[in-house]
Amino acid sequence: MSAPLNPAYSDVLDLILTVPDGDEAAVAAVRERDAQLTKPPGSLGELERLVEHLARWQGKPRPTLDNPMVTIFAGNHGVTDQGVSAFPREVTAQMVANFTNGGAAISRICALHELNLRVFELALELPTGDMTREPALDDRMCAATIAYGMEAIAGRPDLICIGEMGIGNTTVAAAVYAALFGGTGADWVGRGTGVDDAGLARKADAVDRALAFHKNELTHPLNILARLGGREIAAMLGALLAARHQKIPVIVDGFVATSAAAIAYAINPEAIDHCIFGHTSAESAHARALAAMDRKGLLDLGMRLGEGSGAALAAVVTKTALDLHNTMATFAEAAVSGKSA
Amino acid sequence: MSAPLNPAYSDVLDLILTVPDGDEAAVAAVRERDAQLTKPPGSLGELERLVEHLARWQGKPRPTLDNPMVTIFAGNHGVTDQGVSAFPREVTAQMVANFTNGGAAISRICALHELNLRVFELALELPTGDMTREPALDDRMCAATIAYGMEAIAGRPDLICIGEMGIGNTTVAAAVYAALFGGTGADWVGRGTGVDDAGLARKADAVDRALAFHKNELTHPLNILARLGGREIAAMLGALLAARHQKIPVIVDGFVATSAAAIAYAINPEAIDHCIFGHTSAESAHARALAAMDRKGLLDLGMRLGEGSGAALAAVVTKTALDLHNTMATFAEAAVSGKSA
Repeated sequence: MSAPLNPAYSDVLDLILTVPDGDEAAVAAVRERDAQLTKPPGSLGELERLVEHLARWQGKPRPTLDNPMVTIFAGNHGVTDQGVSAFPREVTAQMVANFTNGGAAISRICALHELNLRVFELALELPTGDMTREPALDDRMCAATIAYGMEAIAGRPDLICIGEMGIGNTTVAAAVYAALFGGTGADWVGRGTGVDDAGLARKADAVDRALAFHKNELTHPLNILARLGGREIAAMLGALLAARHQKIPVIVDGFVATSAAAIAYAINPEAIDHCIFGHTSAESAHARALAAMDRKGLLDLGMRLGEGSGAALAAVVTKTALDLHNTMATFAEAAVSGKSA
Repeated sequence: MSAPLNPAYSDVLDLILTVPDGDEAAVAAVRERDAQLTKPPGSLGELERLVEHLARWQGKPRPTLDNPMVTIFAGNHGVTDQGVSAFPREVTAQMVANFTNGGAAISRICALHELNLRVFELALELPTGDMTREPALDDRMCAATIAYGMEAIAGRPDLICIGEMGIGNTTVAAAVYAALFGGTGADWVGRGTGVDDAGLARKADAVDRALAFHKNELTHPLNILARLGGREIAAMLGALLAARHQKIPVIVDGFVATSAAAIAYAINPEAIDHCIFGHTSAESAHARALAAMDRKGLLDLGMRLGEGSGAALAAVVTKTALDLHNTMATFAEAAVSGKSA
């Protein structure tokens, strides 16, 4: 017996299937200005692509980064009962306090580089169901959490970085990837916060048992999200969808955040075209997940922290790229001779 | 008849052969602090390595970045007579003015991220000899230029980025690599500022002719530097050597800057252990040059501008890494539970 898609998802599904196109006229305006800047054409590489990306998805010929925001969605997970993390579950709430108090890595990156930081706690006192023996979320709760995630854009950011915190959530994300893209637990789990070999085996086993337990229910990416996912993954999906519809480019963080984009991608590949993947995580299967969507991370610094930290570093590069675009001298202004060929 | 090494190089050679070791006690102190920070061990990846690198080569258990500096060495090249660049030679001096006036990409990166910028003009009115038919520099001038490059550290920076500007210098660097590491012009040339296919062929041909013309003289890396190199490459070699002896870590920029490191490496591989390679350039043979020295670029953003721009972005990442190391909360300070395994 296969599960039909619960009507609770109809609005979400509609948002995924009706994403607006990018603004190619804005991109053309960016390219026209770029050609006048005192540098060989194309020589800033990805920095030029980043400015075009901002223009395309903001719909602005002169893109802005007046209000770049890093969001962190935090959730707890029943699957931690299966011994899948090197840290106890209470660390999720402790780290949320650390974000707010300014002591975490992401707090410092945001302070140093003038990025706004917003933390969304998702019922930390109510871990999701243990996916190895029950659904993580019921469909109404899953749909409601997606809708809640859309609130992330309430502050009208002009760029949003999407990150997460949740002890156990690399196991959850691995299960989501396996259900979406195929393969077994062993293909998708990694060491997360730093489990040993026995912990890694427990993670793979938990994923495999979850896939088997729910095998007749994993009929749609949104069903996969509810049965195997977590509140933070659902909320990140909502945030990235709302961003698309409100002309806000997105930078997705690492292994877990990318699983939210993968849900949207599996329904409509164009739904994530406004997303930059900020980095390739050292969590081993992140590169595999990106490749499954024909994407690459902007940075590759061996990071596997989460918290939006890789996305935030990519935002620093993006801010730099836009500053260069807006403030570099033109050939005419600097009286530099142009290309002779 | 092979060329002996000119006695003018004896001091330089001595500096290359007697480089001081890194301070492993300082690295151990960094690792001890890192283990207390509120993140899973190792989860900041290369950011952790960067702080260790600063500690090792500054010799400081608590490294500093109070005075990070970007240096640009600018030179002109006789080989531009061979039609190897898309831009005319006068652009070198025009861009030096643009650096100073704040309109260039590197000027903006430095302003935005609080890096000091120093530009060293190297007799722009006196291009080096055209390597296809004469030595680029005589040995005494080459040795004097290396010594001049050592002045780069006079401002007592605690990190130095080494970059360059010089119309024609990707052809020169390609010749240096071919002489040091083998291969022909076609293996080492790329499109530089943006030459077309005919220009690319002229570059490869110019390298091959230079290698043939000087073939009996390319008996030592310093002879290669003088016969084929440029003033900015010689000066960058001086800067990176002085930095090592004065406990200043170095970030090397792209294709041309790396050729200065390659000269030192070919004489003593340990002489560049204090160097980070800031990025892998889009100039096609840069990855090959790095691989020949068993190195990788920190960033890979498809940039090929020079001016120290890739090194400066790597310095921004390094500044961020050190800020995290110095200011993140410890597990004890934040009352976060440690790893349970």
